Amino acid sequence: MTFREIDTPAVLIDLDIAEANIDRFQAHCDRHGLRLRPHIKTHKLPRLAQRQIAAGAIGITCQKISEAEAMIAEGGVEDVLLTYNILGAEKLARLRKLADRVRLSVVCDNGQVAEGLSAAFCDADAPLPVLVECDTGAGRCGVQTPEAAAELAAAIADLPGLRFGGLMTYPPVGREAKVQDWLTRARTLCEARGLTVEVVSNGGTPGMWQAQEVPAATEYRIGTYIYNDRSLQARGLCDWADCALAVLATVVSVPAPDRAIIDAGSKVLTSDLLGLEGFGHVLGRPDITVAALSEEHGTLSAATIGLAVGDRVRIVPNHACVVTNMLDRVELVRGDHHEGPAPVAARGQVW
Amino acid sequence: MTFREIDTPAVLIDLDIAEANIDRFQAHCDRHGLRLRPHIKTHKLPRLAQRQIAAGAIGITCQKISEAEAMIAEGGVEDVLLTYNILGAEKLARLRKLADRVRLSVVCDNGQVAEGLSAAFCDADAPLPVLVECDTGAGRCGVQTPEAAAELAAAIADLPGLRFGGLMTYPPVGREAKVQDWLTRARTLCEARGLTVEVVSNGGTPGMWQAQEVPAATEYRIGTYIYNDRSLQARGLCDWADCALAVLATVVSVPAPDRAIIDAGSKVLTSDLLGLEGFGHVLGRPDITVAALSEEHGTLSAATIGLAVGDRVRIVPNHACVVTNMLDRVELVRGDHHEGPAPVAARGQVW
Repeated sequence: MTFREIDTPAVLIDLDIAEANIDRFQAHCDRHGLRLRPHIKTHKLPRLAQRQIAAGAIGITCQKISEAEAMIAEGGVEDVLLTYNILGAEKLARLRKLADRVRLSVVCDNGQVAEGLSAAFCDADAPLPVLVECDTGAGRCGVQTPEAAAELAAAIADLPGLRFGGLMTYPPVGREAKVQDWLTRARTLCEARGLTVEVVSNGGTPGMWQAQEVPAATEYRIGTYIYNDRSLQARGLCDWADCALAVLATVVSVPAPDRAIIDAGSKVLTSDLLGLEGFGHVLGRPDITVAALSEEHGTLSAATIGLAVGDRVRIVPNHACVVTNMLDRVELVRGDHHEGPAPVAARGQVW
Repeated sequence: MTFREIDTPAVLIDLDIAEANIDRFQAHCDRHGLRLRPHIKTHKLPRLAQRQIAAGAIGITCQKISEAEAMIAEGGVEDVLLTYNILGAEKLARLRKLADRVRLSVVCDNGQVAEGLSAAFCDADAPLPVLVECDTGAGRCGVQTPEAAAELAAAIADLPGLRFGGLMTYPPVGREAKVQDWLTRARTLCEARGLTVEVVSNGGTPGMWQAQEVPAATEYRIGTYIYNDRSLQARGLCDWADCALAVLATVVSVPAPDRAIIDAGSKVLTSDLLGLEGFGHVLGRPDITVAALSEEHGTLSAATIGLAVGDRVRIVPNHACVVTNMLDRVELVRGDHHEGPAPVAARGQVW
């Protein structure tokens, strides 16, 4: 499988593998009564968002307004959760337009964001559902306690143009019991204030097979599962055969018997390490280390490199979601068959 | 300086600083009789390539064919050195077209690449100048010995459609004497074979102020110097006031007194560490660490963060050249004045 007709470096997406990944986790969610809301940041391709919805997803998650706009533009997406604190007049105006086109909900973790949303939606036909983002231990965004969650929920419910939509968390990995306790307590406190907690949104690929261990959640958000990557293989969540995204590269130099240089550097593979050593896995050559990247060169090391100038390699990157963001197009394949290029609709956009 | 009219995250380019950086190093090269050939990978903006040439550069360096195409498309660039082993029918056809439009030279470090170039140029009106890439210690591409350099030079000179153009190296940092010896020996060996060594191209920003310590070089290639970045500040090569590129970001959450979250993550700042801790420098706040990045979030840490939701910060990234590659446009500024956006012409391109 060298895809000689594809110039390199190229990002290959194996649709057979991606579709199997979609269907496998959809089945898991169906079995456990969890609604699935895939995060499209991983692929940024409308056709894959549509495929996720066709498989049973209730809608999609986006991190940026431009991602939502791109997914909606090609149709098939009717429900979007934007898991980001949206601030600023320009973004809020675009958010209003999005709400006219799809069932939109957003998150917020502080009063300033809630007030901005309210100012933008106070004259809208329908109130905007706003979920309270909860820091259940991951230490990124989110209110710090269930009490603070209930307080912000009440503030949202009181603001014109907004409706309290529920709770959302980006959870710490492997701490399901803690997340369950946190969300249950927050729900209880919200309900004690007379608020209905319609949605409790949990998510993240590392904890995907334990999703049901947080029964407080009504829905699960997940991105990387569609492609998988070296970080997930290292966690034992997938095998190389489950990795739908690979970077196709050509050996351009073999300066020494233990070293080859490929035409994929940090501007394709990215410098994301995610705690790993090396910058990717060369399929079929576990003895090779992707030892260094400069911008357009990758250095492969092995005791005996055994590669010649012109040879091609496929590399599973450490982190698929950031590689998606690097080139204007990907090449769609099914096994050895090359279907053709696809523009990455939602990449390069500023916001 | 908050540039309220610019939505975030945005990549700001201060043209006053960039122009001063261009002029300062041009003066250094002029003083030492070195020809300057800036590498445009750092900015990917035709207007800055033109500015570099107007200041006295003899031409530009590109790493990718698409970079050269983009720089030529907007005029003003007449001389391009492509410092990459070009392989494959599609790239070679584009290289032929480039050679019709500008004075083009390329590098190669092996016979297969030389033969491919020869096959593509054997029926061209003029032979293509090909420089031999030399590994003088950096351990990336390049022939391994001066003897191998002379041998490849002779092979190039014998191939139809090609002309031996000289020697090129991407040198190890701080090893000027070694590089000088290597290149001098290679030149002597080439001349012993009756070959003229027209160009000896050395380069790299870390060694910029020692460029004259390799008098074997006739020209110097340099990229990052135009913007500077945190890695160069850490090396003592510039001060923050010399950094022309900064990422403008908005604080979207202040979950705790020691932590703020900004709307710039690895999809803008990138995960490049270049040996540093943290992912950037917050201008005016040396006490803050850019402690973690996820794709669209950056985590700022400090004993007392002292930031509020909606505040804006400017961050000098670890590595300017990769940040240039992340967004479809940058915002041009001069001090506090915002000139407007500029598309990053040569980014996102596959090859």
